[in-house]
Amino acid sequence: MANPHAVRLDRAREQLSERGVDALLLGPSADLVYLTGYHAPPLERLTMLVLPAKGEPRLVVPRLEAPLARGHLGDLEVEVVAWDETEDPVELVRATLGDAGAVSLQPDSRAADGRLGVGDRLWSTFLLRLQAALPGADFTVASAVTRALRMVKDAAEVEALAAAAAAIDQVVDGLAGLRWAGRSEQEVARELDEAIRAAGHDETCFVIVGSGPNGASPHHAAGPRVIEPGDAVVVDIGGRRAGYCSDTTRTLVVGEPPPGFVELYQVLQAAQEAGCQAVAPGVPAAAVDAACRDLITGAGYGAHFVHRTGHGIGLEEHEDPYVVAGNDEPLVAGTAFSVEPGIYLEGRYGARIEDIVICTDDGARRLNTTSRDLLVVTG
Amino acid sequence: MANPHAVRLDRAREQLSERGVDALLLGPSADLVYLTGYHAPPLERLTMLVLPAKGEPRLVVPRLEAPLARGHLGDLEVEVVAWDETEDPVELVRATLGDAGAVSLQPDSRAADGRLGVGDRLWSTFLLRLQAALPGADFTVASAVTRALRMVKDAAEVEALAAAAAAIDQVVDGLAGLRWAGRSEQEVARELDEAIRAAGHDETCFVIVGSGPNGASPHHAAGPRVIEPGDAVVVDIGGRRAGYCSDTTRTLVVGEPPPGFVELYQVLQAAQEAGCQAVAPGVPAAAVDAACRDLITGAGYGAHFVHRTGHGIGLEEHEDPYVVAGNDEPLVAGTAFSVEPGIYLEGRYGARIEDIVICTDDGARRLNTTSRDLLVVTG
Repeated sequence: MANPHAVRLDRAREQLSERGVDALLLGPSADLVYLTGYHAPPLERLTMLVLPAKGEPRLVVPRLEAPLARGHLGDLEVEVVAWDETEDPVELVRATLGDAGAVSLQPDSRAADGRLGVGDRLWSTFLLRLQAALPGADFTVASAVTRALRMVKDAAEVEALAAAAAAIDQVVDGLAGLRWAGRSEQEVARELDEAIRAAGHDETCFVIVGSGPNGASPHHAAGPRVIEPGDAVVVDIGGRRAGYCSDTTRTLVVGEPPPGFVELYQVLQAAQEAGCQAVAPGVPAAAVDAACRDLITGAGYGAHFVHRTGHGIGLEEHEDPYVVAGNDEPLVAGTAFSVEPGIYLEGRYGARIEDIVICTDDGARRLNTTSRDLLVVTG
Repeated sequence: MANPHAVRLDRAREQLSERGVDALLLGPSADLVYLTGYHAPPLERLTMLVLPAKGEPRLVVPRLEAPLARGHLGDLEVEVVAWDETEDPVELVRATLGDAGAVSLQPDSRAADGRLGVGDRLWSTFLLRLQAALPGADFTVASAVTRALRMVKDAAEVEALAAAAAAIDQVVDGLAGLRWAGRSEQEVARELDEAIRAAGHDETCFVIVGSGPNGASPHHAAGPRVIEPGDAVVVDIGGRRAGYCSDTTRTLVVGEPPPGFVELYQVLQAAQEAGCQAVAPGVPAAAVDAACRDLITGAGYGAHFVHRTGHGIGLEEHEDPYVVAGNDEPLVAGTAFSVEPGIYLEGRYGARIEDIVICTDDGARRLNTTSRDLLVVTG
């Protein structure tokens, strides 16, 4: 069987040619992992894959990372070029681009320089150095090339996402058995962190426990507030398992729901269902957002749904496609993303329901399968 | 007492004026934490502090992060400008720069645009968007302005680093009591991860357990290799406590040291001592590197000391100043950095000794105080 990374490198080169980009320049990132399998540590020392549209890939790495890089690359045909502490790695990148004909190394030949796709999350300190060394080049984001590849998950990736989702669902199944009233959000979050790892994740990526009014701040993490009977609590958790991310949200109430909450939750649950129902190949991502939003707006909560409906997921927690107004890109079978509408009443409470779905020819396949009915915990 | 972040913002503005930079543009980063106290999550949605040399700072944040930002900022005089999902935050940044006179908002007035310092670790996707929106501006790294501030730690920061160092030393004190032979590096690493957090760190930043030949790869993390009697083991560990980082390395042997190791270790220990002795205000950072390196080279191991001697530390694990050949910047009292020479024999073993030191008027104050003699563990 062909090395899967070799296949991906070939497909990336095809994309480069199609899109008129002469080379990709990738630092430590999910793009680099996707294309080569190298989990490079993000360092102030430059690590950079140079992948020309025409020519062989080279990985420029600090000498002390070279053994690690070689180990991760295995038999993948990528030349590892190590640089010493007193060398300038940007010069090595430039020379590699010159060898591949992606830029001209002659002085005063700026017109000859090419279009280069730099990793979206490459640090600006590196981009500024590349721009200074290659003043004739035109820089764009690598995702212009990589997003089309990474967005559509292959069978192994879908399986990895499903396994991560099953692991996080196991944590959700345990929510009813936890003690809530009288404990701080942070205490509960620590317990969830342990549970996420115990469920088979390699690491916890985030734990949001937003109780009472804190639930109305969608990205509140977990604070010292002590959870009380009558609180609504938003629990948004995720981890990474074998490289792929999980992410799910459920909202629960401790004892008696606060006034108005049950009605709000019913609207939200219907909206999340409508969003999932809207998913199909060819449907614009924005239509999934609209399906959720129209229902929430119709119920009078439109101003309180303050974020987009979802984000892609895979090697990264948040990646393309974004399920947001304005993204009219049609969904493709194999795309993985969250459907997570929320309603937030400042000073009172918030609620959110989130599942990861795969767009299939038969519509949305939900990877998260725990109940979406309002969970009432007793203590 | 003045808000310490207000004092830092004022000092940053002075630096901007002195260095001819018109504004800082900072994303989620240690610079942002240092100047404002806002621990912003790194997101694909732009968060950006705009700090003009002349004019009031504004923080552009996604609306759903606004409550978190306001909470972290407290009473600091920074205007929070929230943007909605369908707005372009780069336009808000541009408008803020225009209001402060740092760039011109007139069409065709590129000559009027200023010099902007962007966060060193700002993602390239954001820098490219800023460059497209501000084609007349000249971009440089923010560290040109912030490094002089952050490099010299104030009394509270030295105390925070000392407390983090004491916490990691507590873990080192426990190394002799662990079981080594017959366990994988990963098993030991998991135990150390727990110990790092139990010792008072808020999080573990890294755990390197490099046994036998793995110790010869300086940034090997921890793998499946089972530790054997006769192995040398490099243990390099660090965490974060109240925002500040710890980082220390000790090398131990399991039972009988392998041939040649004791001699090598004696050279290394003397070199690390020489490096620490070389530290004083006014001494170039490169001289500390040379003090270690000369001794190692003199003993015939020069080719096996494959990395610089050290890195600054503070809010980040690695920050300015770097203790490396070519960095002729004189050390200043209050600077914090590692002194960590290593010797690596490929295929056999490696050794490294690392302490964090503060440069004081009386020379190096070592924050790590555990024994640097070769630790021999019995099992």
